[in-house]
Amino acid sequence: MKIILAQQNYHIGNFESNTQKIIAAIEEGKKQHADLMVFSELCICGYPPLDLLDFTNFIEKCNESIDMIRSHTQGIGVLIGTPSVNEKKEGKNLFNSAYLLYNNTIVDVVHKSLLPTYDVFDEYRYFEPAYAWHTMMFNGKKLAVTICEDIWNLGDNPLYRICPMDALIKEQPDVMINLSASPFDYTRIEERKAIIQANVAKYKIPLIYCNTVGSQTEIIFDGGSLVFDKDANLLKEGKYFEEDMLTVNFLDNGSFEEMSIATSKEISSVKWNPSVYDQHLHTDRIYDAIVLGVKDYFSKMGFKHAILGSSGGIDSAVTLAIACEALGNENVHALLLPSQYSTGHSVDDAVALSKKLGNPYDLIAIQPVFDAFMDQLKPIYKDLPFNLAEENIQARTRGNLLMAVANKFGYILLNTTNKSECATGYGTLYGDMAGGISVLGDVYKMQVYALANHINRNGEIIPQHIIDKAPSAELRPNQKDSDSLPDYSLLDAILYQYIERHHGSKEIIAMGFEKEMVERTLRLVNISEYKRNQFCPIIRVSPKAFGVGRRVPIVANYLS
Amino acid sequence: MKIILAQQNYHIGNFESNTQKIIAAIEEGKKQHADLMVFSELCICGYPPLDLLDFTNFIEKCNESIDMIRSHTQGIGVLIGTPSVNEKKEGKNLFNSAYLLYNNTIVDVVHKSLLPTYDVFDEYRYFEPAYAWHTMMFNGKKLAVTICEDIWNLGDNPLYRICPMDALIKEQPDVMINLSASPFDYTRIEERKAIIQANVAKYKIPLIYCNTVGSQTEIIFDGGSLVFDKDANLLKEGKYFEEDMLTVNFLDNGSFEEMSIATSKEISSVKWNPSVYDQHLHTDRIYDAIVLGVKDYFSKMGFKHAILGSSGGIDSAVTLAIACEALGNENVHALLLPSQYSTGHSVDDAVALSKKLGNPYDLIAIQPVFDAFMDQLKPIYKDLPFNLAEENIQARTRGNLLMAVANKFGYILLNTTNKSECATGYGTLYGDMAGGISVLGDVYKMQVYALANHINRNGEIIPQHIIDKAPSAELRPNQKDSDSLPDYSLLDAILYQYIERHHGSKEIIAMGFEKEMVERTLRLVNISEYKRNQFCPIIRVSPKAFGVGRRVPIVANYLS
Repeated sequence: MKIILAQQNYHIGNFESNTQKIIAAIEEGKKQHADLMVFSELCICGYPPLDLLDFTNFIEKCNESIDMIRSHTQGIGVLIGTPSVNEKKEGKNLFNSAYLLYNNTIVDVVHKSLLPTYDVFDEYRYFEPAYAWHTMMFNGKKLAVTICEDIWNLGDNPLYRICPMDALIKEQPDVMINLSASPFDYTRIEERKAIIQANVAKYKIPLIYCNTVGSQTEIIFDGGSLVFDKDANLLKEGKYFEEDMLTVNFLDNGSFEEMSIATSKEISSVKWNPSVYDQHLHTDRIYDAIVLGVKDYFSKMGFKHAILGSSGGIDSAVTLAIACEALGNENVHALLLPSQYSTGHSVDDAVALSKKLGNPYDLIAIQPVFDAFMDQLKPIYKDLPFNLAEENIQARTRGNLLMAVANKFGYILLNTTNKSECATGYGTLYGDMAGGISVLGDVYKMQVYALANHINRNGEIIPQHIIDKAPSAELRPNQKDSDSLPDYSLLDAILYQYIERHHGSKEIIAMGFEKEMVERTLRLVNISEYKRNQFCPIIRVSPKAFGVGRRVPIVANYLS
Repeated sequence: MKIILAQQNYHIGNFESNTQKIIAAIEEGKKQHADLMVFSELCICGYPPLDLLDFTNFIEKCNESIDMIRSHTQGIGVLIGTPSVNEKKEGKNLFNSAYLLYNNTIVDVVHKSLLPTYDVFDEYRYFEPAYAWHTMMFNGKKLAVTICEDIWNLGDNPLYRICPMDALIKEQPDVMINLSASPFDYTRIEERKAIIQANVAKYKIPLIYCNTVGSQTEIIFDGGSLVFDKDANLLKEGKYFEEDMLTVNFLDNGSFEEMSIATSKEISSVKWNPSVYDQHLHTDRIYDAIVLGVKDYFSKMGFKHAILGSSGGIDSAVTLAIACEALGNENVHALLLPSQYSTGHSVDDAVALSKKLGNPYDLIAIQPVFDAFMDQLKPIYKDLPFNLAEENIQARTRGNLLMAVANKFGYILLNTTNKSECATGYGTLYGDMAGGISVLGDVYKMQVYALANHINRNGEIIPQHIIDKAPSAELRPNQKDSDSLPDYSLLDAILYQYIERHHGSKEIIAMGFEKEMVERTLRLVNISEYKRNQFCPIIRVSPKAFGVGRRVPIVANYLS
């Protein structure tokens, strides 16, 4: 039985494009004489569809797509993910389902049992879990079909009380097939392989794992579909961050035909200690993920041109280089917006960067606009001393100018805020916090440096001076980030323990960080919730990003 | 057995203030010789605590609060809501629990079974449901204690597969007691009473229902705690939108002592047809809810002074009047920001309003700043014609000036956008969409008029001219909202069918609305998701508000 895994990039709610893409893969499968095509979780509508599932019409469109795809299944089986209606009058209205289509018929249907409802996942908001399980018969083989999270409960995962594969294995299936929409974070690739391998080790039958790929606003799916033989050897591995098709030939004896083994049983080669923050961990895949995040945001929104404020600092430099990689240098417009407090180097460095990258740039001084603001505010401000208010006016003048050019020419503003700033609220709402999507909002400052070095790995793209100089917002004379914040190497390590690891102040202090610094940092995080609440979507690369995966009440008074 | 219901306003994560408030009520209960005090759901930490529940330290603080409260329970029973740890190594880490405290001991614990995970609710994100049920013995009585949603499944609610009261009733309890955190929307008061009454009708024992009160960022809890006798007569009803204590004397014969019956069995006097949009429905309670929402946002965030842009239009007028009611007129600063396109009336009307309300106001013309922006943009804009970009520059200049005054003096910017604008994206990001909290973001334009008339019910506060004139953003010559949008009476009715009722274009057109208008309106809603994503929290008064209760993917391409 020839099986093809289709690892594809879908667009949520774009039924026409998704259906065409799926049918094209089936037609290609027919050419290759495939017996069975495997697609990913909820691929019909794209994952995650969120509250669009509440519209009857949305579910009707899913069914229409299934009907269209069904008409292309003469002589070829198709395993495909779609929402389906719960006909019983109890529980939620929908299931998260896998359909087996063959010869223009819906041959069989199974539903997802374990519904992730944590971090970025909200599946129990929409779906009723399955309470009964059965294998599917196809081509004389018994298929144990599960959906994503279903195989993540191996007895050591305390999140669920049931384990669907424990039920399915009783029917003595020939192969496990999992339809997935498993998002990327920089820890995930090894973890995912280990979990899937552990399923094979436990149930001792082959496993075919088809993941989706592509970015959906903030969530990136990295692909990397997998095929394991019954001895837990990895036979095939899909590409990461791009579409792919994997072909395997499943023999009657329950093994796969003549295939070299991709890796040994020992999957995870990276020895990562999650209890310690490592700014250099997986910089390469973080870079690839963010590039895909920018690319897909623009293509799925129908945008072509980006704009960003290029300050001569490290954050905007890395953002600019990533945007040029994702969108093409000619489509990324840099706007240099020096203030009276900007050093000469700032402009020189920003110009040098754009010359190196070959992207268009313009320069607008903000001083005349700032002066006009101050003139108009004079009757109210009177002679009060310069403080944060004036710094914010400058930052917002920059935001306004960036949006003015963006609106006039149809560009989308890329936000350049990093995760350390986002965490501590070190940024101005409607100023440097403006933008359509945040490129670096899930990488700490020290990771931004690692990305800069990665970008320069084959020769200098980002001028070394940008990497070497001390960070500054340049909103008052001789301002440095270090005036307001701890050293980034310490700050990032504390933030990591708080955000990613959920440790409280007591535990972080016990790790050896200075008490005053820890308490001040955690306080900054907690009083900045209102700012993050109005921040744009952040391309997610870590196990705990700000945004949809982290929900904290704004009016809360909880500071440790 | 004397029972007192404590309907209190808590502050999420403010353990000190919540614990003090609870202990004060217990001490008052002791004075009144109460046998049992009933508090609301998760009152120890405030509801909803969201991801703060992920911190071990947060749960420890809940337990410390329980210990402190426990030490005040000599001779008095206390039923109280708190998160508790799931000691089993399967399922989620926490339960949403009710503790019975007595004589410094935790006498009994029950857990919530039905975990709302829809709209603004995310309970399955955090909690494991109860799978077994038992009544609590106290003072010789059997108490069937449930938590909020637990009593909302009466067989006709298709959301759940179990019904905890069906299990509890088998133990022949004497009374049902429900600890609740049930949020307000304008349809909710009648619905809630009807559900609770239906429980009494079904189980034929009395029911004591204790709700929380107060606003938590966007979600308003309206109080209105209830006591029903076994014949489903409403005996007591707590105040709405304020704290209250209700005392009942539960007799050995299973009835309540000598109490006049508050209302007849027929609870719902408002004949509301949810399939038709009614802009006048419950204007009074919407007003009270929003006033509480503003008041609590400021008090819980530790703010005192508000600022807003007063344009002479209806939205800012209603916002200003509400803010003066909530915060005191002397604490609300109006900033008049006329453009060159503003009519003389705009300033006159705004001044007249502030004189009537007695709140401080200032005027800053935006033209000089706009001119400075245009000068600086000239080399890039060249001679391109005036369009939306220039309108946005003016709106953002206003936003910048408002934030400039807010930052200098420590004021919080109130947003004046209404739900019709928010739905259609008729507003400028970082301009008129700026603000700390949205006062009118959950009331459609026609409801804003109803609120204006309500504010004027005892005499003119909002000048009639503001109510009568045609709405305009005044960002280009002779601009009117009706140039860009359908008539608000039609627009609001279409939006209501789409947002609140989840009808698609086909269904709405079938109701008799014009096809082109419906499709254009729905398209505007769907392409504005990115704007709403960066909008501030909206005080929620409807069954479907934008914000946390409505989650739509930004990159989705789904337009009907």
